[in-house]
Amino acid sequence: MNFISIDKLILDALAEDLGTGDITTESCIPEDAVSEGYFRAKQDGVFCGMAVLKRVFALVDGRVTVTPLVGEGDEVKKGQDIAKISGPSRSVLYGERVSLNLVQHMSGVATATRRAVKAVEGTGCIIVDTRKMTPGLRVLEKYAVKAGGGRNHRFNLADGVLIKDNHIVAAGGIAQAIGAVRKNAPHTLRVEIETESIEQVTEALNAGADIIMLDNMSVEEMRRCVKLIDHRALTEASGNMGERDLRQVAETGVDYISIGALTHSVAALDISLKFTM
Amino acid sequence: MNFISIDKLILDALAEDLGTGDITTESCIPEDAVSEGYFRAKQDGVFCGMAVLKRVFALVDGRVTVTPLVGEGDEVKKGQDIAKISGPSRSVLYGERVSLNLVQHMSGVATATRRAVKAVEGTGCIIVDTRKMTPGLRVLEKYAVKAGGGRNHRFNLADGVLIKDNHIVAAGGIAQAIGAVRKNAPHTLRVEIETESIEQVTEALNAGADIIMLDNMSVEEMRRCVKLIDHRALTEASGNMGERDLRQVAETGVDYISIGALTHSVAALDISLKFTM
Amino acid sequence: MNFISIDKLILDALAEDLGTGDITTESCIPEDAVSEGYFRAKQDGVFCGMAVLKRVFALVDGRVTVTPLVGEGDEVKKGQDIAKISGPSRSVLYGERVSLNLVQHMSGVATATRRAVKAVEGTGCIIVDTRKMTPGLRVLEKYAVKAGGGRNHRFNLADGVLIKDNHIVAAGGIAQAIGAVRKNAPHTLRVEIETESIEQVTEALNAGADIIMLDNMSVEEMRRCVKLIDHRALTEASGNMGERDLRQVAETGVDYISIGALTHSVAALDISLKFTM
Amino acid sequence: MNFISIDKLILDALAEDLGTGDITTESCIPEDAVSEGYFRAKQDGVFCGMAVLKRVFALVDGRVTVTPLVGEGDEVKKGQDIAKISGPSRSVLYGERVSLNLVQHMSGVATATRRAVKAVEGTGCIIVDTRKMTPGLRVLEKYAVKAGGGRNHRFNLADGVLIKDNHIVAAGGIAQAIGAVRKNAPHTLRVEIETESIEQVTEALNAGADIIMLDNMSVEEMRRCVKLIDHRALTEASGNMGERDLRQVAETGVDYISIGALTHSVAALDISLKFTM
Amino acid sequence: MNFISIDKLILDALAEDLGTGDITTESCIPEDAVSEGYFRAKQDGVFCGMAVLKRVFALVDGRVTVTPLVGEGDEVKKGQDIAKISGPSRSVLYGERVSLNLVQHMSGVATATRRAVKAVEGTGCIIVDTRKMTPGLRVLEKYAVKAGGGRNHRFNLADGVLIKDNHIVAAGGIAQAIGAVRKNAPHTLRVEIETESIEQVTEALNAGADIIMLDNMSVEEMRRCVKLIDHRALTEASGNMGERDLRQVAETGVDYISIGALTHSVAALDISLKFTM
Amino acid sequence: MNFISIDKLILDALAEDLGTGDITTESCIPEDAVSEGYFRAKQDGVFCGMAVLKRVFALVDGRVTVTPLVGEGDEVKKGQDIAKISGPSRSVLYGERVSLNLVQHMSGVATATRRAVKAVEGTGCIIVDTRKMTPGLRVLEKYAVKAGGGRNHRFNLADGVLIKDNHIVAAGGIAQAIGAVRKNAPHTLRVEIETESIEQVTEALNAGADIIMLDNMSVEEMRRCVKLIDHRALTEASGNMGERDLRQVAETGVDYISIGALTHSVAALDISLKFTM
Repeated sequence: MNFISIDKLILDALAEDLGTGDITTESCIPEDAVSEGYFRAKQDGVFCGMAVLKRVFALVDGRVTVTPLVGEGDEVKKGQDIAKISGPSRSVLYGERVSLNLVQHMSGVATATRRAVKAVEGTGCIIVDTRKMTPGLRVLEKYAVKAGGGRNHRFNLADGVLIKDNHIVAAGGIAQAIGAVRKNAPHTLRVEIETESIEQVTEALNAGADIIMLDNMSVEEMRRCVKLIDHRALTEASGNMGERDLRQVAETGVDYISIGALTHSVAALDISLKFTM
Repeated sequence: MNFISIDKLILDALAEDLGTGDITTESCIPEDAVSEGYFRAKQDGVFCGMAVLKRVFALVDGRVTVTPLVGEGDEVKKGQDIAKISGPSRSVLYGERVSLNLVQHMSGVATATRRAVKAVEGTGCIIVDTRKMTPGLRVLEKYAVKAGGGRNHRFNLADGVLIKDNHIVAAGGIAQAIGAVRKNAPHTLRVEIETESIEQVTEALNAGADIIMLDNMSVEEMRRCVKLIDHRALTEASGNMGERDLRQVAETGVDYISIGALTHSVAALDISLKFTM
Repeated sequence: MNFISIDKLILDALAEDLGTGDITTESCIPEDAVSEGYFRAKQDGVFCGMAVLKRVFALVDGRVTVTPLVGEGDEVKKGQDIAKISGPSRSVLYGERVSLNLVQHMSGVATATRRAVKAVEGTGCIIVDTRKMTPGLRVLEKYAVKAGGGRNHRFNLADGVLIKDNHIVAAGGIAQAIGAVRKNAPHTLRVEIETESIEQVTEALNAGADIIMLDNMSVEEMRRCVKLIDHRALTEASGNMGERDLRQVAETGVDYISIGALTHSVAALDISLKFTM
Repeated sequence: MNFISIDKLILDALAEDLGTGDITTESCIPEDAVSEGYFRAKQDGVFCGMAVLKRVFALVDGRVTVTPLVGEGDEVKKGQDIAKISGPSRSVLYGERVSLNLVQHMSGVATATRRAVKAVEGTGCIIVDTRKMTPGLRVLEKYAVKAGGGRNHRFNLADGVLIKDNHIVAAGGIAQAIGAVRKNAPHTLRVEIETESIEQVTEALNAGADIIMLDNMSVEEMRRCVKLIDHRALTEASGNMGERDLRQVAETGVDYISIGALTHSVAALDISLKFTM
Repeated sequence: MNFISIDKLILDALAEDLGTGDITTESCIPEDAVSEGYFRAKQDGVFCGMAVLKRVFALVDGRVTVTPLVGEGDEVKKGQDIAKISGPSRSVLYGERVSLNLVQHMSGVATATRRAVKAVEGTGCIIVDTRKMTPGLRVLEKYAVKAGGGRNHRFNLADGVLIKDNHIVAAGGIAQAIGAVRKNAPHTLRVEIETESIEQVTEALNAGADIIMLDNMSVEEMRRCVKLIDHRALTEASGNMGERDLRQVAETGVDYISIGALTHSVAALDISLKFTM
Repeated sequence: MNFISIDKLILDALAEDLGTGDITTESCIPEDAVSEGYFRAKQDGVFCGMAVLKRVFALVDGRVTVTPLVGEGDEVKKGQDIAKISGPSRSVLYGERVSLNLVQHMSGVATATRRAVKAVEGTGCIIVDTRKMTPGLRVLEKYAVKAGGGRNHRFNLADGVLIKDNHIVAAGGIAQAIGAVRKNAPHTLRVEIETESIEQVTEALNAGADIIMLDNMSVEEMRRCVKLIDHRALTEASGNMGERDLRQVAETGVDYISIGALTHSVAALDISLKFTM
């Protein structure tokens, strides 16, 4: 995560929350007051977003200091301090809500991902995300998935190939669709195709797909497909995986499980800022 | 919701998801192909975001037509069609994911709000949101809370007064803080103050607060505070309300319950786009 | 005033005035030349905008130093030094015109406001602004009104309620309009309504308006309305107040006088930058 | 004036005034209500800004129609209708304040310019503006000066040369400064220099200046300088011209008078929107 | 190419070239004048950019009509008409230079690419671009390479993996570098590595590289490497290919040749707009 | 060149090249690794862009140090070091491609300009650029022309007058066109007109043109025109000057030669970044 790609996001979030100024704070708190406090977990979970936390306050006021007390992707316990903050009181309050909204969300994504990763531990199966993400926050959510122990799927429509139903129909078949993509896409990209049956898997394999997505299949179907494919292509289980028994799926031998719920249904990790001064 | 405030958000979301172009679609689907399909609910819930759905496609390609089949804030059943779409296939696919990501999120907020509103039905108590929102999406989330039957709290730090702990300490007491704000804030705003005990409530009342927030109190405490206040100020219950028995809280007689979980922990309503042609 | 909300304004103003570079300065003045000088009032008035003055040069070149010699909102005399500046000559010249254009305008607003505030001194009446502002400069003008001793009305259409003629007609009457707004607006906002007669005032009072604007009334009418309202609502005199005898208006007992001319017809306070080196 | 350069300005102004939406209007006025009305002058003056007026509403809602009733730069009388507007009531109200703020300001500039132009009528002297402008509105103010009958000076530091005091000192003299600029500036630009005495004028003339500014001179001094120059360079009177007797200045024979007050101290022309339906 | 990704580029280019308005045109040409003309090739080459040509004028003024007379990627002859244009004269002139600057550049890229593609015709070798591109124009240049018959390499650092010298050294060897990337990059991406010797090729092959770049090798070395690799990885010749005999390189059997000169040293194809009315 | 006008360009270029992050570097190179290296010329030419080179890395990471080893506009030899760089390895790699793309392009422009300047050395003739530039890079290209020893023509349509064919026809003749422009353009601008014959030159001279462009004339025609004009106006030779014998043209006595090829057909100067650590 580089600042080039997130500064605008943070500045927009600050503008959204500060509007034309914090009336309450500017009325009650003198300009020279200083504060000190702690970001503290109010639930167990995986923390993610320290760089964002620091950057929010750097952009608000260079005099605010944020000292990390946990590492990126660390599991934190309810009541555990995550970071210490000190600096001008007004500036701390200006950045409070935005920084919390961001890291609570990122930590929520990391926590859900960690849970999924643990569910498949030891199987060799890898948890990945999807494009079912919160608009505007994709860079942060992708980052949080990795902090949680997962891996990223393509970032957007331009940097990965995924041939779906409509593409197959429009192209006139699986072989034709794969051929069309091979002719047009950068050679730096693998070609992935969505399949819904063992017949489609066979076709995709024959057409030289690099990655075969097994979409909405039963555990039994997946197992058969994985066996058929036999490492000639990478395999990815997909389709409402947020509600499936991930271990069972992983044990079919698929290489990847992609889960939209990691990012489309995020439960924020509860974190608060407690002032000590 | 006017387009001035959401067009940038939608264009940014499209840029994020389209990147430099949809390689798969541009490889497989001819420029002149047309498609038709339906946005369909895959779970029960409250739909929200028709104007956004239409606007995404208007910005992608003016030739795409979206015909609403349900009203804003309507309850939809699993399998029910929400809107019909038709137009150039490529353009439909360009806008598919972004439009779904947005309306699934908005509908998730509306659904959670409706649930809370129903829980307090008949008590006269009103459900409101907080500033614990997804950065960048506040306009849409505030809108979705209203579609769900709730009402909005202040939009940001500039358009509402909320005196908290730190403000009280820095100002030297509740009366001083309220006085300071009255001197500085526009007279068009009410003054709200957060209290944690019946003593603070008494002080706030004497100092002429317009709205008294009862923060993290037990049902019994709230009941006593409401009685004490006796309509001399508006009352708002707050503090982890997402995990409380809302009806019990409402029956204490508070005017408002503010719930962060409506927007900080959103479970997307599952909606998909099914092509019929 | 926080920098998040004004940096873009300042950078845009610099881009507007610098264009692709200051040909004259770059031709005549060596890169390593340094200058020193004073911002000096060329008329009596109220100074406003020190933070903006400093920020313009901070954004142009961090090596320029601006030392304030008067306080925000201070009355300055013709010939009085306002701030000392020193640093690279080119950078001082790059920021000169933009900084002057901004603080002359802000000081003009503050000066006019101070005049109005003094006119009503001792009556308890408060001078406020309106939305008749210079597009793009609202944050600065609102700030300058406060520096001049006034208070702000709502910032925009979203953060304050003001029911006017058209709203009343469309809603079907004063009671209906107030009712409609109460159902939709955040409870953190008071409800203000514009009235033009004692009959409308009575109706507004009965409907529970929080603030009653007395629009374009004679002094005698205002006096009667204020008496009738008798502190059951706040009162605000409005309508070409820039041309009225403010003391007379204030002595009717109205709580607020709102004056568009403070910001729609600003006479810049003449300030210049005099080089001493 | 082309839309490329003003659309952003208008959209920003709308965002500033609309914020997250017009609560009052959205509460009281149904989505399908339509209105009709007139923009009407409430004082005598010169109207300017019809294209801006139309564009504001085109950007708010394509269904609003604005029909001009006066021409650009026309003199209007108190009570005269300027334009007719009709369309969806909400959209008319969304654009009302921003459109008025813009055209009142532009008309104020045009009116002040017309007054100055008339003061020098028949002398052949031309009124021009300066860089003492409202930040962000320079394109509109420059345009309004022309609508008022004046002409524009350079737009910014990049598209015109004006050698001032500091430049002369730093370059080591008038001849050196002019020489330095000739070597660096595009040949498409004339070279203007500020002079404060007849000695400086002589020097500038010898060095081949194209335009000689006579800064803060008495009428008598100007007359002598103009005679000396004898059309070998263009002449421009400058320095607090807003407070001088313009006719007297013009009669010295100067080619141009530049007046900062045209744009740094603008009295808005009072215009209102009266609804007839 | 979708408009979401190029409209900003075009609007910025128009703002750059129009500045605050076309003084010459606005002085000489009446607002209601109309013109007609032809975009005409003044040299032989490959035309590219019709969609951009049309979009420039659509953004300037919807009333301008552009009628294509050649297809995208067509070879055009000196004197051949490329497109017909008609509409308001001012608008045609506003868009003239920007549209020409863009399509001349794109056609220059397409022409150079076509030349390279023809040089390797029949060998099966594919010409691709690099990241040595004109800042800000990457979307258009990538598009033009394809119009010329080439294919694209990765768009940027995020959507493709290319392990270079420094990466290998820092990671501690080729195998380690490939391993590190495999653990971190999306599985949708192939892994490419730069090699400079047959030893490095062997190592890369053993480590399972998907694509092996043969950097700055002699034809003889390349031939040996291609033979060694024997289709177990894709091969890409690179390193000053703009100055090499492409056919000779292609005949070594490499799959791809990447050429920076296609985009870092573009000779614009001469095209002019000739008015017929 | 001031940073106000180029920071956005650089940040956009970095965003374009970095996308959502440099996967390869982030996989292989530890966060705390440091590097050192040299920007080195790989061909002879004129270097241009040191301020840009420094600014790219300042914006990427303030800890990177760039030490110039040559001056702006210096001639460099193949193999010569241009600047030393040291700092965090990741940050150096993040900025590498963008900085090279920019300075290679600028140096290419400077090199071509120097070649043209040398061709006319001693004649007194001045080489200038045109508006045939790379969209988005005009500020940098204009700057590079000056670094190469040339001078700039107008920056855009707003800051210079150039009356062409169409303007003459529409205005009704040369005298009318010049008159129309004189009435509308700032007096700070000279008036230039394009001529194609000695008859047009005569007319332009009589109408008082400040600069006469001799467009697409033979050397003999130019010579005759220059003689006729006899310093009563500036003269500028134009029209495919990139392919003409510049010395021959200069010896006709024209004051300026404007050459589009300097910027529409730029051959990048080959520069690379060599790591030493």
